[in-house]
Amino acid sequence: MKKLLLLAAPLLLAQAPPPSLVNTSADDIAANAPGAHWLDINPDHIMVMDSAAGRMVIQLAPQFAPQHVAAIQKLVRAGRFDDGRIVRVQDNYVVQWAARPESGKEPVSQPPDVREQRVRPERLPAEYERPLADVAFTPSPFKDSYAEAGFVSGWQAARDTSTGTVWLAHCYGTVGVGRDMPPDTGDGAELYAVIGHGPRHLDRNIANVGRVLAGIEPHAALPRGTEALGFYKDERQRTRITRVRLASQIPGFPKWQMMDTASPSFAQVVQARANRTGFFVRQAGAADLCTLKVAVREVK
Amino acid sequence: MKKLLLLAAPLLLAQAPPPSLVNTSADDIAANAPGAHWLDINPDHIMVMDSAAGRMVIQLAPQFAPQHVAAIQKLVRAGRFDDGRIVRVQDNYVVQWAARPESGKEPVSQPPDVREQRVRPERLPAEYERPLADVAFTPSPFKDSYAEAGFVSGWQAARDTSTGTVWLAHCYGTVGVGRDMPPDTGDGAELYAVIGHGPRHLDRNIANVGRVLAGIEPHAALPRGTEALGFYKDERQRTRITRVRLASQIPGFPKWQMMDTASPSFAQVVQARANRTGFFVRQAGAADLCTLKVAVREVK
Repeated sequence: MKKLLLLAAPLLLAQAPPPSLVNTSADDIAANAPGAHWLDINPDHIMVMDSAAGRMVIQLAPQFAPQHVAAIQKLVRAGRFDDGRIVRVQDNYVVQWAARPESGKEPVSQPPDVREQRVRPERLPAEYERPLADVAFTPSPFKDSYAEAGFVSGWQAARDTSTGTVWLAHCYGTVGVGRDMPPDTGDGAELYAVIGHGPRHLDRNIANVGRVLAGIEPHAALPRGTEALGFYKDERQRTRITRVRLASQIPGFPKWQMMDTASPSFAQVVQARANRTGFFVRQAGAADLCTLKVAVREVK
Repeated sequence: MKKLLLLAAPLLLAQAPPPSLVNTSADDIAANAPGAHWLDINPDHIMVMDSAAGRMVIQLAPQFAPQHVAAIQKLVRAGRFDDGRIVRVQDNYVVQWAARPESGKEPVSQPPDVREQRVRPERLPAEYERPLADVAFTPSPFKDSYAEAGFVSGWQAARDTSTGTVWLAHCYGTVGVGRDMPPDTGDGAELYAVIGHGPRHLDRNIANVGRVLAGIEPHAALPRGTEALGFYKDERQRTRITRVRLASQIPGFPKWQMMDTASPSFAQVVQARANRTGFFVRQAGAADLCTLKVAVREVK
């Protein structure tokens, strides 16, 4: 007997729910949304990372962390992530990877006390939030434990009207920049992707620079590191990053799109995720920000 | 340079935060909590699952799903999970495993249409929530997207005072009972553990029977299944479960404890998780239910 947890299947409830709850699934709504409800993703803002585990496609968010994204694009164009390493996998938290050190001669397998001697390439400002005034923020209709949840042109975000700022939320698949204790030291050469429950307490404490569009699965399934914070103990445990390029550098790379979170179709997706049918005998009537994923797609 | 995301380290902020925010970490509070702030876990309520991936220790919650837990204990005592299989791993969702079919002759590797022929051992009621009246509910001080969040004697839970019910919340590590479309068909022979963002929309739609105390890591790192919903395609992809016993059946198995969520120490933990220091330049001032993990420990 193959038991399922979730089915986007015909309604099989003993009692039919009230008509307002009979809706199509979020996936169906996205699949049938008109082209005008989708936004093209600039291929300069897509980072394609090939590792021994597989290919991970990452969308960068220059509107939230312009200097970090520019630094990352520069590192990618210089080939600095080629022969990098996945250095840390912490369960229910992050997978983290590092570019080759600047000199090209100090492998990331060096112990931290040796690697700390190298000169840092640049120090970027703490791009943890940005002014709210000049972006269009679509509020989520549901309560949020942390702030006011919503969306900014295809991204899960949160705002604080008292500070007049908005920021990318930490959810499954969010990509951020590793940093040391002083808050301005992340340089984009060490990045992480969230592989657990959305750690929203990191919001406004770290520069979020993007999210995984595809290929997180084999990276989320890497063995957890056994050292403190999930760092790997030695070089042979690390997964090699073979090559990282921007989509704009790869001839014939497919176009990607994200749903326009200001569109009527996305508002329907939000309601469908809050009021699931089929398998569900009771609709939640709400959904938290990280559950309100924004559909993305490769355009064939 | 070894960049960290989280440090329980001395305060290194450029400006000292106000005294109210200078607190010890949640882990420190738990480590120093008096013994009276911990609750013993009954060894009859601990299921010890050994698989080819490692050992996973699971606490059962009979106060929330008494008939399902009794059925699971019966299956364990009958050895029905021995030579079971992990049949499904869906990224950012669940790892799911199945007991041997009742006859002992139909392996779970049989295709679903064959396995569906077997007689189901019993059909259990939909233990999705329980009366609120006779449990002590400690509310979380923070907002929740779904309901009213809180804690019941060591468990993350939520309540609805209009229905007078309370239920275990779906968070990372929560263990529930797989079921088919009719809501009363879960029999405890197929269980899942959450390995992604807390799928709270499953609350009150499925019988939650417990949580992982230890050993989720190697199971969360298993390869994701390639079939629909993360089911594995064939037998050789499945991880073998070698043996499952209750802790009470294992001589010398260590005692486990969970923090008493009604204790003053746990109230401090909640505040510490909401107002993190050290690495954090800005305190969230709140935390969602799934982030407010209840400390558990093996007593040496």
